[in-house]
Amino acid sequence: MTEGRTSGRGPGRPPLAAAALGDDAIVAAGLALLDEGGEAAVTLRGVARRLGVTPMAVSHHTGGRDGLLARVVAAAHAGLDVPPGDHKASAAEVAAATLAYAQAAQRHPAAVAALFARSDLMPDELKRFSAWVRGQIALRDPSMADRGLALLVDYIHGHLLAASVAPEDAEMEHTFRANVEQLARWVLAE
Amino acid sequence: MTEGRTSGRGPGRPPLAAAALGDDAIVAAGLALLDEGGEAAVTLRGVARRLGVTPMAVSHHTGGRDGLLARVVAAAHAGLDVPPGDHKASAAEVAAATLAYAQAAQRHPAAVAALFARSDLMPDELKRFSAWVRGQIALRDPSMADRGLALLVDYIHGHLLAASVAPEDAEMEHTFRANVEQLARWVLAE
Repeated sequence: MTEGRTSGRGPGRPPLAAAALGDDAIVAAGLALLDEGGEAAVTLRGVARRLGVTPMAVSHHTGGRDGLLARVVAAAHAGLDVPPGDHKASAAEVAAATLAYAQAAQRHPAAVAALFARSDLMPDELKRFSAWVRGQIALRDPSMADRGLALLVDYIHGHLLAASVAPEDAEMEHTFRANVEQLARWVLAE
Repeated sequence: MTEGRTSGRGPGRPPLAAAALGDDAIVAAGLALLDEGGEAAVTLRGVARRLGVTPMAVSHHTGGRDGLLARVVAAAHAGLDVPPGDHKASAAEVAAATLAYAQAAQRHPAAVAALFARSDLMPDELKRFSAWVRGQIALRDPSMADRGLALLVDYIHGHLLAASVAPEDAEMEHTFRANVEQLARWVLAE
């Protein structure tokens, strides 16, 4: 949190608005805009309006619009932790990490779309996840590393596309989880 | 072809335009509109403008806008033939049919999007394809039929999403074909 660092706020602005201008508040506002209106809705002006501050103040905190968008996309993938180090994990562990990615993508589909359009915004969480899954596959069969990662990630994206137009369907979700677990075993030759 | 069945054309319309109003010409015009502008661009008026006839004449041929769209979506999947009967096919045959679907989807992504939004437009070609793949998996393991079909089709859609934003990449295509073939073998337990 960085409350109190807002150099641009005027003397007449209420203290509440100033106090709100921390990184957490900016990211939360940006993520709400992303979820509601997609990448294009994540603007300095939009975040500023939500927080009752000036766009300049938001820019000062984030280093501009791209910095804002990068933080928001990263926040959409928060919690996507992979085990540290490069010890050999089980297929169940790989499946669990892959399902954590699927959950983040399902919660914030606009973040997935933003990364398709702007791979330069790829957050460290997602780079670590990809590298870890690729590494786990490579421990078994290096020639399958890229292919196996593509199988897992593309299957997830294709499922999310189908799920996004289907009514809530517990069986579809169950099938999906079972398929990710199965695919992880296949890809890891277990 | 059904040239000459257009009851609505006026006496002053040139013969060329009248001759153009066959099913093939209507479907070709509709498919071009779909590829250029997506489902929303496939209208009686749009096709009529391309062919130099009245929207009413197009409606007469197709049974209205939904009939037009259904024919266009079906045409997007033309050539998606599966072997007749229900003999046990090899994994290579299943992979070939699946790749044929992938090609149709890649050529006409707006048809895929249209079917996500309007499953009532599902063409017979695609129903036969799905039933055949499901049947081939069920011959080995009935409990895998739906799951295996979802794995293949969702993986294809996820790949197409990734490929649609990536530059032409022969290696990515090669990986994709190899993955579909591998996935078919896994799903069929071969």
